Amino acid sequence: MPGRSISKQTLSRLPEYLRVLQGLEGQGRRYVSATAVAEALGLNDVVVRKDLASVSGAGRPKVGYVREELMGELEHFLGYDNTQDAILVGAGKLGQALLSYEVFPQYGLNIVAGFDSDPQVYGSEVGGKKILPMEKLPGLCRRMGVRIGIITVPGEHAQKVCGLLTGSGVLAIWNFANVHLSVPEGVLVQNENMAVSLAILSNHLKERFRTK
Amino acid sequence: MPGRSISKQTLSRLPEYLRVLQGLEGQGRRYVSATAVAEALGLNDVVVRKDLASVSGAGRPKVGYVREELMGELEHFLGYDNTQDAILVGAGKLGQALLSYEVFPQYGLNIVAGFDSDPQVYGSEVGGKKILPMEKLPGLCRRMGVRIGIITVPGEHAQKVCGLLTGSGVLAIWNFANVHLSVPEGVLVQNENMAVSLAILSNHLKERFRTK
Repeated sequence: MPGRSISKQTLSRLPEYLRVLQGLEGQGRRYVSATAVAEALGLNDVVVRKDLASVSGAGRPKVGYVREELMGELEHFLGYDNTQDAILVGAGKLGQALLSYEVFPQYGLNIVAGFDSDPQVYGSEVGGKKILPMEKLPGLCRRMGVRIGIITVPGEHAQKVCGLLTGSGVLAIWNFANVHLSVPEGVLVQNENMAVSLAILSNHLKERFRTK
Repeated sequence: MPGRSISKQTLSRLPEYLRVLQGLEGQGRRYVSATAVAEALGLNDVVVRKDLASVSGAGRPKVGYVREELMGELEHFLGYDNTQDAILVGAGKLGQALLSYEVFPQYGLNIVAGFDSDPQVYGSEVGGKKILPMEKLPGLCRRMGVRIGIITVPGEHAQKVCGLLTGSGVLAIWNFANVHLSVPEGVLVQNENMAVSLAILSNHLKERFRTK
């Protein structure tokens, strides 16, 4: 059902479903049921059934979904078949890791260049992408119609970089800096907040040892 | 109210609250209200009020919380004042970025060593941490009582590494590999799933351009 909005919770589960379906490659299974996907992920099968129905419609009674069709629908829904250009700002260790991350193109993300404020790295290449000076950012974004900006600068510079990106036409910010970013309306910030993950891990350990 | 369980949604907002409170440092404000925190983050203030009450009790009428006390309570709840040892497996670009990430100690995470299967990197240091051969993993985990394992190996090796970690006493896995991991009961997997973030960004762009 393209054109329909979907909750963030559902959206965040879709890549997991796709991973399970991809994992079944080579087992020669033509069909896969929502129940089987739910079991593989340890999720409630009512949830999985509902999520899949919102992307693909209901599976066939008894047999479920045609695996390859469902994979195609998930990939389309997730935008993996529709590559988006992005730029990255901050070519430190994390930035370099992301520039070199070979898996992004499979997810429809094409990082076209990195930017940094350190003249020493201008012109160098990381993961096959040129590192350019900040002054070139607005022009390149506008010329190429770049809509996604990845921020991997230290926290104290992140808001300034964010303003530069949104001022250059970027509509979606992927923020790895550990600060809250203010953006104009209509711009999305997706925080890759490692502090949240750490809090969840630490809370789990606390609860584990409390119940022992 | 220590000892009480808390939802993952609430837990994931707590580090954001802490960031806002830290950001007010230097403004000389002794008190801060749930409303002010909600405004800074663009959240509903009923949500923030409820979240903060679960960590700290209700704020004082009219004035709210004593900022520094609330920060201390959040830090304690999040486990930031209680450092946990962790090890990292997979000293590629992403692994190296994490080993060098200077912010982790502030969140109570202390990576004691990195492990890799490539003999060429044995004995080298990244971010002040030694890279050790895989054979040393079980012994070190048991000796130091390491409870957190960070996986930054390619997807096809992640499950094997995960088994090695849980078999060595690790109870919380921070998974950066793009595969679903099966773990024994009582072990938590926190997926740092970049595919999810990318799906959310891409969906936002799709919706933006649909409404234009």
